[in-house]
Amino acid sequence: MHCFLSDSYRDHNPKYEYFRGEKVPCFESVERLDNIVKALQARGHKTVSPDHDATGVIHTLHDPVYVQFLETAWQQWLALDPANEALQPFPSVWPTRTLRDDVVPDNFIAKLGLYSMDNGTPLAQGTWRAAKSGADAAVSAAQYLLNGNGSVFSASRPPGHHAGRDFMGGYCFLNNAALAAQTLLEQGMKKVVILDIDYHHGNGTQSLFYDRDDVLFISLHGDPKTEFPFYLGHGDEAGEGKGEGYNINYPMPAGTNFDQWLQCLEQALENIHSFQPEALVISLGLDTFAEDPISKFTIQSDDFFKVGHKLASLRLPTAFIMEGGYATEALGTNVVNVLEGFEQG
Amino acid sequence: MHCFLSDSYRDHNPKYEYFRGEKVPCFESVERLDNIVKALQARGHKTVSPDHDATGVIHTLHDPVYVQFLETAWQQWLALDPANEALQPFPSVWPTRTLRDDVVPDNFIAKLGLYSMDNGTPLAQGTWRAAKSGADAAVSAAQYLLNGNGSVFSASRPPGHHAGRDFMGGYCFLNNAALAAQTLLEQGMKKVVILDIDYHHGNGTQSLFYDRDDVLFISLHGDPKTEFPFYLGHGDEAGEGKGEGYNINYPMPAGTNFDQWLQCLEQALENIHSFQPEALVISLGLDTFAEDPISKFTIQSDDFFKVGHKLASLRLPTAFIMEGGYATEALGTNVVNVLEGFEQG
Repeated sequence: MHCFLSDSYRDHNPKYEYFRGEKVPCFESVERLDNIVKALQARGHKTVSPDHDATGVIHTLHDPVYVQFLETAWQQWLALDPANEALQPFPSVWPTRTLRDDVVPDNFIAKLGLYSMDNGTPLAQGTWRAAKSGADAAVSAAQYLLNGNGSVFSASRPPGHHAGRDFMGGYCFLNNAALAAQTLLEQGMKKVVILDIDYHHGNGTQSLFYDRDDVLFISLHGDPKTEFPFYLGHGDEAGEGKGEGYNINYPMPAGTNFDQWLQCLEQALENIHSFQPEALVISLGLDTFAEDPISKFTIQSDDFFKVGHKLASLRLPTAFIMEGGYATEALGTNVVNVLEGFEQG
Repeated sequence: MHCFLSDSYRDHNPKYEYFRGEKVPCFESVERLDNIVKALQARGHKTVSPDHDATGVIHTLHDPVYVQFLETAWQQWLALDPANEALQPFPSVWPTRTLRDDVVPDNFIAKLGLYSMDNGTPLAQGTWRAAKSGADAAVSAAQYLLNGNGSVFSASRPPGHHAGRDFMGGYCFLNNAALAAQTLLEQGMKKVVILDIDYHHGNGTQSLFYDRDDVLFISLHGDPKTEFPFYLGHGDEAGEGKGEGYNINYPMPAGTNFDQWLQCLEQALENIHSFQPEALVISLGLDTFAEDPISKFTIQSDDFFKVGHKLASLRLPTAFIMEGGYATEALGTNVVNVLEGFEQG
């Protein structure tokens, strides 16, 4: 499969994250994408650099003030204290109910809290470069479909689907899948589907298109009653206004196996078929894998061929956009299994 | 001065909090109130146990579902893992813009995030007992004024003024000053003032009475553009609906000295005089003190006599409710200076 590889994915390299209140090495690591690249190359898939700039569409979907914060966050952090070079900023206070989000504080940590949904999204020196380069790869993938090609993979990290219009979260800063879909629409398509098969609900993507009827968002994921992101992804979220009926969630309990998961996928494929879209954007998370360290489904490596095969049955131009998956060793194999399953489908 | 002392304040004894991403000993410590009690006794002020139960008014001002969460939080935390005994739970994800707060997750940490405005409010085994006992002391103080007495001090910790209807934050769980004011109103008073002189804006108190005209809320505090709680306490927050005109904020820049602070207090006293209240509730924070480790005003210990003296000039039944102040050694002296300044006023 044709693959766009983010040029700067290694620049986002935080030293630690907080997990249950303790510092741990980052689950969302450079090695994740290193292993994907190795697996792609070993199995004959060439990677190329992004050839389109996402700036325009980033400013369409994301709040420009939030984007400017991301661009300058690390410099703001260092300006507080040069010793911060060895540390990472995390939000510690946030504007919950009755508190205001219409006044941007001067305090840097308060700004970070304003623009975050969690404190599990470490920000490091090269975060903006990596996020921007990932967005470039996603937009390049969309353009590649617009040029008449049938499939493409955008290989990038950090992931994107938890990021909303003006907040980061769940390791995500810019919503790559949403940027790809928006690009397809801006370049002439009328209807696009985003199918999110990451273990975690794509809350950012859902929120970006919740009132729109030109993007059908469908997500298969762990039930938010017990799984991150907790506060979105329930079955009753169907869209609003013009978007009513264009948001479909399939939350599944911890322990869901491949057969059960596949039944939901079959339903999602029927939803997509009825919508008659011109293209498909897949938020490709591999954390549904049985050995994923932070997720609870039981899909096996070989099952991922079948996932790709099923997706191909839609016969739609398809852009795969990389999201999560934290079983680092197996991740490359699992990604390429989906892509090759699709190509053989 | 007559002093109600919370029976259970020592039961809230968390081992650490997070400050700038690192574990540190708690600023809001048991020793704070120990030192206040020592200073009260050394200077001849007797303390008595609370003699009223705050349960009814707690359920009026706070969301009963939130209250039930507080009551059972430590048991829920231990139920996850007995090893949690040695640790403390902190929120790590929260329902920011576009995320839902109308579905309570099953996940305990997600519940904690739903009911929190920060991760700087450590929850420990005896937190509920201490918070409830502090609320009892505040309600007892209100009842003491209703019995015809002129002044009273409620000595308790944890503090209360950051706690809202359904969230904890800033070391606060139940809003003691608000509970005292509500008690005064429920027992027959028509108009009550809450004057908050803690260094940090009393965002919880403001939000609880923002649409009401029976409580005038006035706060003197560090400018939220740079100081906690960051997202409330601006000068343009004047109340809403029936409450319009009954909320007055005096944000002051870091570095404010006593003369400058006193000018704001004089204005606040004029506001109070115009309102013609039947009683005064003081949210008594001593973190305006020059040596406070987490605040930036420059008030000296002897200045606090003058603060009490000024407050006495209103000639109103007055309940002092303990809030913040983290210069632990001087805290007892500073508190009693205010109380004695008032008595001599």
